[in-house]
Amino acid sequence: MQNFIFENATKIIFGKETELTVGNELLAYSNKVLMHYGGGSIKRTGLYDRVCNSLKEAGLEWVELSGVQPNPQLSMVNQGIEICRQENIDFILAVGGGSVIDSAKAIAMGVPYDGDVWDFFEGREISQALPTAVILTIPATGSETSGASVITKEDGLYKRVVISALLRPKFSILNPELSLTLPINQTMIGIADITAHMIERYFTQEPHVEVTDRLLEATLKTVIRNAQILFRDPDNIDARAEIMWAGTLAHNDLLGTGRIPDWGSHKIEHELSAFYDVPHGAGLSVLIPAWMHHVYTENVQKFVQFGQRVFNLEPEYEFPEESALKAITCLKDFYKSIGLPVSLQDLAIPDDRLDEMAARCTEKQPVGNFKKLFKADVLSIFKLAK
Amino acid sequence: MQNFIFENATKIIFGKETELTVGNELLAYSNKVLMHYGGGSIKRTGLYDRVCNSLKEAGLEWVELSGVQPNPQLSMVNQGIEICRQENIDFILAVGGGSVIDSAKAIAMGVPYDGDVWDFFEGREISQALPTAVILTIPATGSETSGASVITKEDGLYKRVVISALLRPKFSILNPELSLTLPINQTMIGIADITAHMIERYFTQEPHVEVTDRLLEATLKTVIRNAQILFRDPDNIDARAEIMWAGTLAHNDLLGTGRIPDWGSHKIEHELSAFYDVPHGAGLSVLIPAWMHHVYTENVQKFVQFGQRVFNLEPEYEFPEESALKAITCLKDFYKSIGLPVSLQDLAIPDDRLDEMAARCTEKQPVGNFKKLFKADVLSIFKLAK
Repeated sequence: MQNFIFENATKIIFGKETELTVGNELLAYSNKVLMHYGGGSIKRTGLYDRVCNSLKEAGLEWVELSGVQPNPQLSMVNQGIEICRQENIDFILAVGGGSVIDSAKAIAMGVPYDGDVWDFFEGREISQALPTAVILTIPATGSETSGASVITKEDGLYKRVVISALLRPKFSILNPELSLTLPINQTMIGIADITAHMIERYFTQEPHVEVTDRLLEATLKTVIRNAQILFRDPDNIDARAEIMWAGTLAHNDLLGTGRIPDWGSHKIEHELSAFYDVPHGAGLSVLIPAWMHHVYTENVQKFVQFGQRVFNLEPEYEFPEESALKAITCLKDFYKSIGLPVSLQDLAIPDDRLDEMAARCTEKQPVGNFKKLFKADVLSIFKLAK
Repeated sequence: MQNFIFENATKIIFGKETELTVGNELLAYSNKVLMHYGGGSIKRTGLYDRVCNSLKEAGLEWVELSGVQPNPQLSMVNQGIEICRQENIDFILAVGGGSVIDSAKAIAMGVPYDGDVWDFFEGREISQALPTAVILTIPATGSETSGASVITKEDGLYKRVVISALLRPKFSILNPELSLTLPINQTMIGIADITAHMIERYFTQEPHVEVTDRLLEATLKTVIRNAQILFRDPDNIDARAEIMWAGTLAHNDLLGTGRIPDWGSHKIEHELSAFYDVPHGAGLSVLIPAWMHHVYTENVQKFVQFGQRVFNLEPEYEFPEESALKAITCLKDFYKSIGLPVSLQDLAIPDDRLDEMAARCTEKQPVGNFKKLFKADVLSIFKLAK
């Protein structure tokens, strides 16, 4: 186990009708907030009205900025920064899924900074950020308690991440009922992302990480089982609750303590969605099994353990590689069973820019830690995913 | 799943030599601290010198209060409160195990309060407390991130608990190397306490708590396996690390989210250690299997699940009660296998005050939630534990 520091102070407010507390919770921080959201779905579902009422009852002022798209864009972030400065806003409330939250965090880091907010996505360290809070509607990115923000710069198709403890939301409201209106395919794409956050942490070369291995297996098993329940019964609120809480735990950094995570698949996927604007989770359900095929020989026993503990596969002691390959097939079958794409073809992605994406992904340095991936590796993974 | 709020901001600093950072960490909060510890063991191991050097290097002033005993006592707490007031101390650093930490928290709540600190143990709500931090030497109580403090009032043999978010330490330093010098029986008594924190949460009547059930099973399996490694190889630092991190996770409230925990065995044990001054963990390894025998018919399937998932028992589908009883035997056998007591006789406790303890335990209200336990139930549990 590696030395580590773990600190996650985000207050979780979980359960039915918890969005009604938002006004009171905000009062501890601000009198005037930016309410940031996506399209019209929160208006259709009535969430918008409930949030506005709660803010009004608490006597808060707010300004709205809506229209965040999947793979949130830098231009919207700059617009948010401008509004906050003009209106003297000191707190950002994100109402939505990962894209809205990531956009809110990017606004929060941009407001107190004189330069171009994209500097942070190029590596500049953050020294301050406005506080944020979340009302979560889509269990997926884990952004509701993470310190990460992923933004796409339209000019050049760059998709980059910033990670800083300063970006963790002050509080996150998690009402699983709010996810009931999500279309089933979006639900499943979110679930792919959740599984990816755990798989990226699970496959480490660090020895003696038993407790986190087991916690990851526990959370992954829960997500797999409840995803299948939701696929046949999307209104199952108990399964929605398991997925929502598991989705947060998958990415609050606890399950990564003491180990070096991989993140190769995420980095490769960022190129895919920057080039083709595919939903992040759909890119991951395609790339992760392909990544596994490319890397499993680096630590066959870890894949045997994965198959046995997550999919209840009886280990093949004489031919461990067989067990490893079976485990990968189980994961791919699981993704298929909940309607997710598992090939570039499923995503209608042609193969004429694979080389360009592989080059872009590795232009600064190789990606991944379980196995360091250079351009040829990434290209090979794209080909395994065809 | 129940609605819940989860917030645990304690910063965890985990790993080798992390105690050397204590001075710098403290500087963010204080210039003058109370250093609170137990007997001479931290001096023998060199920890005391390393901590003093770190405080000195950071330019901090400190006053020492040592001599905390297992089952920490109110008189020592009052002494600490007095010192902090006289010396204008605004921060308590606990260096030790659960007793030292609990004593430090009680001092922290007493300093800003005009009345008798015992009032809080009688039910008065805390509105403020000095901040605290921990250097942990014994993985056991989980007090290093919990909001709980358990203190014994010598006059009358009362052992009571206070729980408040205000009591969570600001930071906790967890270096598993510091637990290497612990005698093996103390190590195992701590492990009994760790398992108890999970078992008390696991046995709930709340349905649809899959993710937390699985997280509890994952952590419990890790603790069981690594306890057995340590029993035959006490110097195994990897196993020490697993136990220390699992011990913190067992009681940081994450594993209790969305469910109503039991806590019956803890409350019964508090009488046992108040009357006979037995170590808390040793009392628990005796009482928990007896409690299980008394309550398993309230939810046989939960015990079948426990046996299957934690001890890999094949369920006995035709006779589920058999499976439940086998699971209880497995737990008892595990405690025996690491040298822990499993009967009142093992603790040399006579049976002439069982009735008195049962009465005291339930004098205000029944205890436990999986099954409400009245005086007759507690007496029956004591008799099953004979």
